[in-house]
Formats: sequence, structure tokens, C-alpha cells
Amino acid sequence: MEYNVKDLSLAEQGRKQIEWAEMHMPALMSIRKEFAESKPLKGIRIAAVLHVTKETAALMRTLKEAGAEIWLAGSNPLSTQDDVAASLVKHDGIHVFAWKGENEKEYYDNIEAIIKPEPNVVMDDGADLHAVIHEKHRDLKILGGTEETTTGVVRLKAMEEQGVLLYPVIAVNNAFTKYLFDNRFGTGQSAIDGLLRATNVLIAGKVAVVAGYGWVGRGIASRLRGMGARVIVVEVSSLRALEALMDGFDVMPMKEAAKVGDIFITATGNINVISREHFPLMKNGAILANAGHFNVEIDVKGLKEMAVSYRTIRPYTEEYTLSNGNKLYLLAEGRLVNLAAAEGHPSEVMDLSFSNQALSVKYIVENRSKLERKVYNVPSEIDERVAYLKLKGMGIEIDSMTEEQKEYAKQWKYGT
Amino acid sequence: MEYNVKDLSLAEQGRKQIEWAEMHMPALMSIRKEFAESKPLKGIRIAAVLHVTKETAALMRTLKEAGAEIWLAGSNPLSTQDDVAASLVKHDGIHVFAWKGENEKEYYDNIEAIIKPEPNVVMDDGADLHAVIHEKHRDLKILGGTEETTTGVVRLKAMEEQGVLLYPVIAVNNAFTKYLFDNRFGTGQSAIDGLLRATNVLIAGKVAVVAGYGWVGRGIASRLRGMGARVIVVEVSSLRALEALMDGFDVMPMKEAAKVGDIFITATGNINVISREHFPLMKNGAILANAGHFNVEIDVKGLKEMAVSYRTIRPYTEEYTLSNGNKLYLLAEGRLVNLAAAEGHPSEVMDLSFSNQALSVKYIVENRSKLERKVYNVPSEIDERVAYLKLKGMGIEIDSMTEEQKEYAKQWKYGT
Amino acid sequence: MEYNVKDLSLAEQGRKQIEWAEMHMPALMSIRKEFAESKPLKGIRIAAVLHVTKETAALMRTLKEAGAEIWLAGSNPLSTQDDVAASLVKHDGIHVFAWKGENEKEYYDNIEAIIKPEPNVVMDDGADLHAVIHEKHRDLKILGGTEETTTGVVRLKAMEEQGVLLYPVIAVNNAFTKYLFDNRFGTGQSAIDGLLRATNVLIAGKVAVVAGYGWVGRGIASRLRGMGARVIVVEVSSLRALEALMDGFDVMPMKEAAKVGDIFITATGNINVISREHFPLMKNGAILANAGHFNVEIDVKGLKEMAVSYRTIRPYTEEYTLSNGNKLYLLAEGRLVNLAAAEGHPSEVMDLSFSNQALSVKYIVENRSKLERKVYNVPSEIDERVAYLKLKGMGIEIDSMTEEQKEYAKQWKYGT
Amino acid sequence: MEYNVKDLSLAEQGRKQIEWAEMHMPALMSIRKEFAESKPLKGIRIAAVLHVTKETAALMRTLKEAGAEIWLAGSNPLSTQDDVAASLVKHDGIHVFAWKGENEKEYYDNIEAIIKPEPNVVMDDGADLHAVIHEKHRDLKILGGTEETTTGVVRLKAMEEQGVLLYPVIAVNNAFTKYLFDNRFGTGQSAIDGLLRATNVLIAGKVAVVAGYGWVGRGIASRLRGMGARVIVVEVSSLRALEALMDGFDVMPMKEAAKVGDIFITATGNINVISREHFPLMKNGAILANAGHFNVEIDVKGLKEMAVSYRTIRPYTEEYTLSNGNKLYLLAEGRLVNLAAAEGHPSEVMDLSFSNQALSVKYIVENRSKLERKVYNVPSEIDERVAYLKLKGMGIEIDSMTEEQKEYAKQWKYGT
Repeated sequence: MEYNVKDLSLAEQGRKQIEWAEMHMPALMSIRKEFAESKPLKGIRIAAVLHVTKETAALMRTLKEAGAEIWLAGSNPLSTQDDVAASLVKHDGIHVFAWKGENEKEYYDNIEAIIKPEPNVVMDDGADLHAVIHEKHRDLKILGGTEETTTGVVRLKAMEEQGVLLYPVIAVNNAFTKYLFDNRFGTGQSAIDGLLRATNVLIAGKVAVVAGYGWVGRGIASRLRGMGARVIVVEVSSLRALEALMDGFDVMPMKEAAKVGDIFITATGNINVISREHFPLMKNGAILANAGHFNVEIDVKGLKEMAVSYRTIRPYTEEYTLSNGNKLYLLAEGRLVNLAAAEGHPSEVMDLSFSNQALSVKYIVENRSKLERKVYNVPSEIDERVAYLKLKGMGIEIDSMTEEQKEYAKQWKYGT
Repeated sequence: MEYNVKDLSLAEQGRKQIEWAEMHMPALMSIRKEFAESKPLKGIRIAAVLHVTKETAALMRTLKEAGAEIWLAGSNPLSTQDDVAASLVKHDGIHVFAWKGENEKEYYDNIEAIIKPEPNVVMDDGADLHAVIHEKHRDLKILGGTEETTTGVVRLKAMEEQGVLLYPVIAVNNAFTKYLFDNRFGTGQSAIDGLLRATNVLIAGKVAVVAGYGWVGRGIASRLRGMGARVIVVEVSSLRALEALMDGFDVMPMKEAAKVGDIFITATGNINVISREHFPLMKNGAILANAGHFNVEIDVKGLKEMAVSYRTIRPYTEEYTLSNGNKLYLLAEGRLVNLAAAEGHPSEVMDLSFSNQALSVKYIVENRSKLERKVYNVPSEIDERVAYLKLKGMGIEIDSMTEEQKEYAKQWKYGT
Repeated sequence: MEYNVKDLSLAEQGRKQIEWAEMHMPALMSIRKEFAESKPLKGIRIAAVLHVTKETAALMRTLKEAGAEIWLAGSNPLSTQDDVAASLVKHDGIHVFAWKGENEKEYYDNIEAIIKPEPNVVMDDGADLHAVIHEKHRDLKILGGTEETTTGVVRLKAMEEQGVLLYPVIAVNNAFTKYLFDNRFGTGQSAIDGLLRATNVLIAGKVAVVAGYGWVGRGIASRLRGMGARVIVVEVSSLRALEALMDGFDVMPMKEAAKVGDIFITATGNINVISREHFPLMKNGAILANAGHFNVEIDVKGLKEMAVSYRTIRPYTEEYTLSNGNKLYLLAEGRLVNLAAAEGHPSEVMDLSFSNQALSVKYIVENRSKLERKVYNVPSEIDERVAYLKLKGMGIEIDSMTEEQKEYAKQWKYGT
Repeated sequence: MEYNVKDLSLAEQGRKQIEWAEMHMPALMSIRKEFAESKPLKGIRIAAVLHVTKETAALMRTLKEAGAEIWLAGSNPLSTQDDVAASLVKHDGIHVFAWKGENEKEYYDNIEAIIKPEPNVVMDDGADLHAVIHEKHRDLKILGGTEETTTGVVRLKAMEEQGVLLYPVIAVNNAFTKYLFDNRFGTGQSAIDGLLRATNVLIAGKVAVVAGYGWVGRGIASRLRGMGARVIVVEVSSLRALEALMDGFDVMPMKEAAKVGDIFITATGNINVISREHFPLMKNGAILANAGHFNVEIDVKGLKEMAVSYRTIRPYTEEYTLSNGNKLYLLAEGRLVNLAAAEGHPSEVMDLSFSNQALSVKYIVENRSKLERKVYNVPSEIDERVAYLKLKGMGIEIDSMTEEQKEYAKQWKYGT
């Protein structure tokens, strides 16, 4: 069997990690149970570029159970859990090509390795797999793909608009049960977790600056407040800024926030949100972290060039001393702090995303003849079903509409 | 000058009310200043059917300042503030036909009175004005209209679909700065206000049940928690139920919530959400209120029939004694508790809605040649501009994207 | 039967008010039930000077049920609810001497009227009754008394220290179940209520400044945040300031807060907390309110003198125009905003205070031979019992320590 | 130089840790600066039993700077940071006897090792050092000691009452700036941190059960809510239970909470709070952690005996499978989860405790002739000074009372 992982002897430890994740993924587990019976992916070969974590393992094992053959590479050079990778190879027969600490060449070699066996379905997180296929493997016969992230979806929509998209893609990211929970609750918590593991600072009493008030930003802002911080939101959209203000947060430009913040977390999806003009304004001891997908939000290159010296003071925490004598602390080199310094999203959140992934792959296979070369949203019945399975798994019961209420909801003929 | 109001001698008191409102409507005031210079509505006659409140007065005075001639009737027989109506007539030369306590004939006579001078633009809240024009005055030459409410928009969309709509209508209700702030922050606060004025109960330590987790419901749930209640959300949508749960609320069916709630507030937009099957389950002393548009959410008729006796124990609070001896307290007869028992939306919220109204009227006039007989959303540049003016009026400055960031937001080729 | 109230025909309306209060006072109601059986106050004549409200009525009816004869006067010339007074006379045979709007002579005549029948036990709110007895009726044989307020307790402690106290007094104010809940939860909510009734402003998005971070201040700060405000705390104690900061509030001197606040609420117990130096710094439209006992916290005299004009713009809201053109809005003339503009403490809070009162009166009678001429705290077993009865009345059950745990709590020899 | 640590080569890494801590301990750093000049501990030998962490290092270095000779042992067999211990030995000349993973004999041997040189002042965390001295070294001439924990203070007070206390002890734990911040904000955050590091579960949407609503319990409850949990409080005191309820938490007995909780955290200071009767009631997957000082709150022995099997599933997370098939997850073997699974209190919190420690040691030395064999509270001027230094270090300015206000605060002669 082909694979390339760091150390197969880590498999037992990885197995426990996967069991732990699956304990907290009740929706995906109920889908697995169903797939194990109906085998909807029989004969399908899947290439997936995803963070190789215990939760991804739970998804891969579910797709395997459905009958698929799986080839998996990592979607980030630093995010692979080597024990999980080992377990997937050893216990589950999944072709994993990933390890923690890949260099750029290795990263792309691994992607090539999983494209080589000519997959029928592709799954991606950030659209690097989609990009490589579109650049170098245009003649593959692919039924369809999925994409996990906002960033990836933006890239794919641009391709669709330019008429160059080669196969249908389901934007898992756009499922309500994905983006809302993943971004808001998942990143909200795990960014705090990453911050604490990297620094162990007391959040209470600190001034935290959150750049971006999209779903990720509002999740982080809410959790920082929940831990006792005074939170400032920085935004470029008047609508979002107004919402942040009404939600009880301070709102100001980064130039002003830079002077008062103790902790900065970026979540804008854009570039150089904290940049050369801001570093010299900051207080001694300020902590800088990024929770956006790419490591472009903080101008790390600029910071390095402006610093008179730097050193690693704690794991994932680098101290930059500026010429004014102030020390700034950059976490995880400006990469996703929740993935780099903590364990990424909790399994409970990935349960939702990956239940959407699992049902979307099944949907692609079942609807292969109908789907066009477009970026599709997750069908709303999948979205609702994932929410339903999750509630059920959490032991929560809800009401359903009475016949009278269904009737009322349809008509609107009442006057004043 | 033609008008019909209750008592012109109330004008001084009305003037103060209007001044108080305008103090809290900075966005609309900056639009007024701009309109006073550019006079974009010169020569335009407007007929408006709106709640004749101090905030509506601020809007009417803004349109007047823009050069328009204004005819105003009330959109609800009970909602007119007579002192405000008097002030608009006496100090502002606005043709008001409205008083508190109109009977049905008077209500429609007043609408006819403002149609008679043949308006160019019509503004409505609930679509009664639009309906009368479509039924009886089909040959009027109307440039366009606006509609403030969800309900009205539903009626107009039906007309558009049936091909009978006579002029373009802008659905002010659908502006982000309208529905989000109005429903969540406006009703969220004013429902608490109505509850307190009607009952003066201590919210802290109570179990509050919120039916519906739409914008209104989540505004109320958030404020109840902010006042110290333990909050239970009742929903029929799995997606919304899951979101409520992740937001930290308890979620259960009404049958279970009925047994433990101290305070119930409905905000579902649907019928009989609290009904005959629930009343006998409730605790002695339970309080029932509605924050949805129509008084159908609590089955008041059912409650009356099941009760062995009822009486008014406080203003806006009726005590129903059931055959099991328990007493239930219904607020404002199941009508909108924030309008009936308190003062409705704060001026700050109406500032957003009415800034959209003002800019939409200008938009209709300026784009009269381009607009078709359709229901339009508020153009997003108006929405953004209202948010911007509001922030500015609150003294809040925000960032704007750099050229580099604008460029980055457009393209998709960056890898990991 | 002797009494002096405004209008006995108000008794039916008063009865409803009392019933509404009693519905929300479960702890006192369970004490009443117990008293009705054991009659612990048989043969005892009580003179009480208290705010004659629906909650006080619930207390008086409880003491009556215990066998006492009751004489009641008001503790403030403006606070009597005439309908409640009428009901107490007509339905309960309580000797009430109180009406809303007494002049000073009438106020003291009423106190004399209830002293005349020679009470055995005296109950007071502010120590005016205690003072009159000590000045003019030193030969009365009084078993003991109670005192409801901080202010009254301070006066009585001074008398104790000077050796002039004539009988034991229980400081009900010092019960944990009194001061903690009354100040934090009662005033916290009712100050918001008063603010909303007086102004109807939207709290969300506003900057609120709370002066004083004692129990009242932190109750208000917490509720303002719960309604969406950004809250600044102003303090003179480093300890409290640090606690406010860790609780997530901004902390700064009033001179700085004055420039950014939209709403100011004082709760310091001290004088001129907002004063002449602050008014000119404030934003146009700033709202000023006081939640402390006395109307000295805002320098109203100074504001009047600095203003170029003032007028009442809404009930309980006065507009002061400064020479810089800015308008400031003073609520309730700087008096307690929750009493003046709203209905004061909810019944649920008074349930705790008055349960302490009821059990303290019983305690005085039962321990008459042991008590000395001192100011006593409420015995902690009464305090615990009130909390227990309240929980029970709210349907809440809690654990009790096992024998093993009681033993563990006593000893100290366990090592690591 | 005498010492016993794991590995001196870890000293460089330890030094960075200490620098990181000191960056976040501004109050202690300003005390160090002052001590470095005045040398108030010249000639004093100190024996300290404290958790050997980077923050303790900051304290030891401060005392050294003040002129003292320092002997340090660990207060818990698992809490020593070996790199910090190495740095203290190598760079600071402090006699450290501690390593992570001591057995019981080694633990007590290390305590003996630091007693041997006959200290003048003793510092303790849990009173094991005090106990050993009282049992075995009664003839030492000790000027006085300090005690960091509630538990230790309880033990020492019992000794004082029994008349066996050998020297004055300052209960640092009783400083407002210690117990309030340490317990509420420190443990509040670090218990969450420990929970996340051990389990990485999503807190949002979970039901968390907090046993004990003292300062630790309310800190944890508040942070759990801030992370999105629904929180149930279990208490044996009616007063605290009522406060929890008014703070918006659910309150119920453990027998009921056991059935619905997903996460349990104990903070009662008592024994077997979660015990054999509760385990079989719990849901599959329930997580059990302790945040109280001793590992007695969860009946670990009972759990082990009831389990059909157990294994370590993740670091600090043991899976116990019950005979009903349910799996329960015990964190850190029931020891302090914030110390065992995370890094204990953030430096910012220890800054307060240890500033009190530093100033208390100085106070003991300066007042050696006046102090009796009693347990003393930290003098309030030290407490206020620590708060002041902390605020200053955080850049926060506050008001001070005017002369008029000081005068007003003294007198209380105002009537109604």
C-alpha cells in the first residue's frame, strides 16, 4: 500500500485520538452507520487535501465505510497530526501522504501523489488541490469536488466566472451548519485556546483588538468578552461596524486600536491588516495573532525588518524588539493560531462540517449526471439534516409545526 | 391649509417630543442637512401612511426640508400621538389626517384625504395605502413608493407576481440597517421595557421562554439573559435550534418549557404557539406576552374559554384563573407588548429605518425613468450609507481598505 | 377603628396591587402560613414606619396573621400608595396613618399617632420613628425594634456608641439576603427601568458611565452591559477599580469618562460625583441619573447655575442647555431614578428584606429577655432560612452536606 | 551550593519562562525595584514551599533582590517546572529542592531539606511546611510565616484556636487582591484552559456543572458561560445557591445535575462531592475535573472500583468504562485541573498574590517584635497598595476623593 507518513509506530496513540474525536461527533457517526449499510461510495476513489487531524480521520473512516478508496494529503505544512496519519494508514488502509513540518516542495509533492491514482471525487480545504488539478491535470475525469473554506470558495467562484472550472464543486463552507458553527463557535473557542497555550496570559482586564467582524471575528470577540476582556472591533464595512457597536463592542480604526490593545487577533481574510504603520504605535508586551486562513493578515516580513532583534521566548511565541525598546509577541509566525498553537477546531464543530462533507460527496456521486461545472451551495435538505442529526446526538428535542401553523405560514392575507 | 387632527393646542408638547426624537436620530439629521441644501424633492408631493409618532415626524420634516409637499395619515387607528400630529400641522405645515382612536371609516377616510391631492410618491407601513390606490385610484400617476413592513412587502410581492403592481416599490423593510437593528436591538429592548412597565417583576432568577429564534427572538433572548434570566428557546427549525443551543440557551419543545417557565414571550410570526394544550401545564403566576406583529401567537380566545374567571390586575396585565386554581397573566391582550405596554422602538432604531426611507424616496425620484413596476430591495449603497451616517453621528470612525487590500480582495491566486 | 388615609374607596384597587405583590413574595407567604398557625406575635402591638407600598402591605398582613396589632405610618411624604393604604384599613383592620403628599407636620403627626397606643415592637425605615421615641417618648416599654436602611443603621449605631439606645434593634439592612439582593439585583434592574421609562433611549451601542462599583454600581453596570451598552466604571478605590477592570469594564477618572459617556448613573453614596467641572466636558445629549439614596451625587444646583436655560422635555427628564450649546438631560431631578421614574424594587426583592423583617420581629419577641440595648445583625440562621424559603418558593432544591462532608469541613490534618 | 533539581541544562529555557512571567507581573516588578534599593530582607533566610513555577521564580528573585537567602521546595509532587527550577539554581543562586514527579517520600525529604538550614521566615502553600515544622521541628526560632491558600489558612486557624501555633502567620490568601483575583479570575480562566488542553471539547452547547459557588466556583461558572455553556451550579448553602440563581445559573442537587451534565468541575473544598452514587447516573462521555486544592472532591477511588476497565485516552484524560457501558472521562486524576493539565494561574494573577507575599514577608521582618502567635490578615494598606501598583502597571488611572467628599463620607447626619 502506498503512503508517506512520519512514523507508523505512532498508530496506537493516533487510534485513541480518533476514538476521542468520534465520541464527540455524533452526527457523523450516525451517517457512518447509515453509509455502512448502504455503501453509497462503492467503487469511488477520493483524493482529499485536508488538515490531517483526528476529526478528518473520522471523516475518512466514514467515507471508507461507505465503500470509497481514499488518498489523503495535508492542507497545511504544519497541521498534520503524525499519530493520526499513522493510524489511518495502519488501521484503516487509507493512503496518507502528510507529516508535520513539510517544506513547500514536499507539500506539493504530496498533492501530486494523491492526484496520481486519478480520483473520481476531490475534497479540498483552501483550493490548492483544485488549483493544481486545473493547472496541471486538466484531462482528469472528475465527477465533482467539495471545498471546505471561504477562501477556497472565492477562488473557485472566480474560476467559475471565468468559465474555466472543470467540474462541479459543492461549497461545503456555505452550509449554514458549516460556516456558522465552524467559524463562529469553532474558531471562536480554538483561537482563545491557541492564545492561552501559546502565552498563558490572563485575558480578564486586557484590551483585545479583533480585526474583522465576519463570523470568525464575531466568534472570537464574543469569547474574548466571555473571558473578561474589553474588546475593540476594527472593520472596513460600515454595516458590520455598526453591528459590532450595537453588540456592545468598541469600534475604531487600527491606528487608534494599536495604541491601546494588549492582544490583537486578525480575522479579515485580507492582507496587511496589521502592518508597518501599526507596530511602532503598540504597547510594550502587545501580543499579535492571526485567526484568518492565510498568514498574510499580519505583515510578518515588515515586523522582522523593523525589529532590532527577535527570539523564540516560548513555543509558538516570538519576541520582536523594536528600536523604541518595546517588545511585541507574534504567535505561530502569523499563521492560524488555533491550528498552530492549539488543536484546531474541536471535534464537535468538525462533526457539522464533515457531516456536510460526507453527505455532499454522496450527493455528487448520486447526482453526477445532473451537476454542471459550477460552484453549488450545499443543498438545504443536507444542511437541515445535519442540524437535525446533531441535535438528536446531543439529546435535544424540538417542536415541529402543527398543520394549522404550516397553513398559516403559507398565507399572508391578514390586514391591519 | 388642509388637515384633520385632534387638538392643535397640543402642538408645543408635540414639538418637544419631536426634538427629543431628533436628538437621537443623527443619521436622519445629517440627511436633512444635505437635503436642505440640494432640495432633491422639489415639486414632489408625497402621501404617507405611517404611525404618526415623534420619529415619523422627524422623517416628514426631513422630506419637507428636501422640498416636498407632505400629506400624512396614520397606519394604525391607535398609534397616533396627537401632540406630534398637532405640531406637524402647526409648526411644519404638514397636512396631517390622523388622531388616536379613529374608527374604521375614519381610518379609510383619512387615507382617501391624502390620496386626493394626487401624490407623486407614496410611503406606506402595512400596505393599506398601496392597497387603496390599487383598488380605487388606478389612474394616478405615481413615480414609486416605499413599504416599511415585512407584512406589507409580502402583499406587494404577491401583487408583483400577479402582474398588477402599478408602480415601483422599494422594500425598506429588507434593508440590513432596517431589519437587523429594528428587530434585534429595537424589539429586543422594548419587549423588556414593555414587560417591566406592565408587571415590574424581577427578571433575575426567573426562567424565561422565548418562542422563535429569528431576529426578534434572539434580540429578546439576549436581553433577557442580560437582565439575569435563565432563557429557554423554543423553535421548529433544527438550524435555529442548534444555533440557540450553541449560543448557550436551553432548547426544548413548548410542552416541556410550559412546565418550567415564569415568563413566556412569543416571536415566531406564527399562530397558536402557546395554546390550549400548554396553559394547564404552566406554573401558577406565569406571565404571557407576545412580541410578534400580530396577536395570533398566544391563543387568547382559548385562554378565555378555559379560564374560570379573569380580571385586570394591573394596567396591561390580565389575570386568568384556570380550573386547576393556577393564575396566568396575559400582557396587553396578546398584542405587541413593546408597542402596547411601552413606547415601541427607541428613536435610535427608527433613525436607521427612516434614513432608508428618506434616501429611498430620493432614489425613486432620481431614477424614475429607470425603475420598473417591481418590488426592489433598498440599493446596497443606500444601506451602507445609512450605516456610515449612523456611525458618524455616533462619533465612530472606521478603517477603509487600502489599495493593496482592495486588490487582494479581488484576486484568488495566492497559495498557502 | 382608628386610621387616617386618603380615600377608602380605593381599597379594591389596592387589594389587587397587594395580591400581585404577594404572588411574587413566596418566602414571606410561607412565613405567613407558619405564623398563622403558631401565632408568635399574639398580644404584641407593633408600630411601623415604612414606605406604604404593596410589598409593605404583604409584610403587615403577615404580622397581623401572626397575632399582632399593627399601626403603620409612612416613611416618606411621597411614597405612600393610597389604594394600598385604603385596602389595609378596610380589608385587614390595620391602623394606617399615611397618604401621598403629606406635609412635614402631617408626617410627624402620623408618627405620633402610631406611637400613642404604646407599641411593644417598633419597625423603621430611616430611623425617624426611633428618633422620635428617643427624643419624646423615652419611658415607653419597648421590647425591641428593626431598621431597614443603611442610613438608619448608621444613626442607631451612633446612638449605641453614645450609650443612649433604649432598646435592642435588629439591623435588617445588614442581612446578606437583604443588602446583596436589594442593592445588586433590585436597583440594578429598576435603575434600567427608570432610565427607559424616563427617556426610551436605545441602550445598545451607547457608552454608559457608572460612578461607584459597590453593590448598587455593579448591579447597574452588569445590567447596562446586558442591554448592550459599553460600560465605563469610575471609582476612587484601587481595589474596586481593579475588580471592575477584571470584570471587563473600562475604568477611568470622571474627567475622562465625561467626554465619552452617553448615559451617566451615580451610585457612590457620596457628594458631587458629577460636578461643575464635568458638565462642560460632556457630549451634546448626555443623560444624567442618580441611583444612590440621596440626591447629592449630581451637583444639580451647579448644573442649574451653569445652564443658560432649562425646561422639562419629557416627564422626569429636564433639558439643561449650557453656554457651549450642548444640552444635558437630568432625570428625576437627580433623585433616585428607580423610585422616581419607575416603581422601585420589584416585589421579589422586597420578599427577602421583609422576610428578614418578619422573622426578626418574632426573634425580638422570643428573645426579649436576652437581648441588650444594642444594634444586632440579623442572626445568620434567619438569613439562611430566608434564602432557603425563597429557593423553596421558587421551586429550587439544593444539596445538603453528608455527615462525612461535615466532618471533613471541621478538620485540618489531611496532607497533599 | 546545595540544591536538588532534575536537569540544570534546562536553565536557559527556564530563564525565558521567567522573563515571560515577569513581563506580566508589573506590580511585583515595581516592588522588586524598591526592594533592590532598600534591601529590607538583608540577612533573612527564607524557606518556601510553593509551586515551583515561573511566577514563583519571579517572587523568589524579588526576595533575593531584597537581600534574603532562599530555600525552595515544591508544594505539589506534580507542579514543578523543571526548567524554571534549573534557572533559579543556575542563574539566581536559589536553593531549589523540587522536580516534577516526586514520590511521597521525596516530597517530604525536600521539605526537610529546606528546613534544615533553619529559616527565619517560612512561606507555604497548603500548610504542609507549617505542619512539618509543628510536628517535628518545634524548637526552630521562626519570626513568622505566610500561607497562600484557603485550605492552609483553615489548618493554621485551627492550630491557633488550639493554642499550638508556634509563630505569627500572615494569611496571604485572605488579601482581597489575592483571593478575589486568584480564585475568581485566575482559576476561572485556568480551569477552562486545563479543560481545553486535556480534552479540546467544544464548550458551547454543553451543559457544565460547577460544584461550589465560592470565589473559585463563580469564576469558573462565569467563564464557562462566557464560552457558551449552559451552567448548572450545585451548592449546599442556601445563600450561595440563591445568589447563583440570581446570577442566571440553574441550581439543582448533584443527583439531578449528574443526569444532564456534559462537564463537571468541583470547587467546594470538600470531600466526595461527586461520588459513587453519581457515576452511574451520568451520560456517556461525561467529563469530570476538579479545581479545588485537594484531590478529594471527586471519589477517584470509588470510580476506579466501579469501573470495569480504564485507560489513558489522551494526556491527562482517563477513560473509565462503567458496567452500564458508559464511559466517563476523569481529568488529571482528580487533581487540580488548572495546574495539572495547564500552566496554573496566569502570571498576571500571581502578580497580585506574590506582591502580597513579598510585602507580607517584609512586614513580618519589620514587625517581628510586635506580632503574636496568631493568624493575621494581610494589612489592608498592603492590599490597597498592591491594587494600586497593579492598576498603575496596567496604565489605568482612577479618581481620588475630593476634600469635600472625604468630609461627606465621614459624617452621616442627614435625615430623610
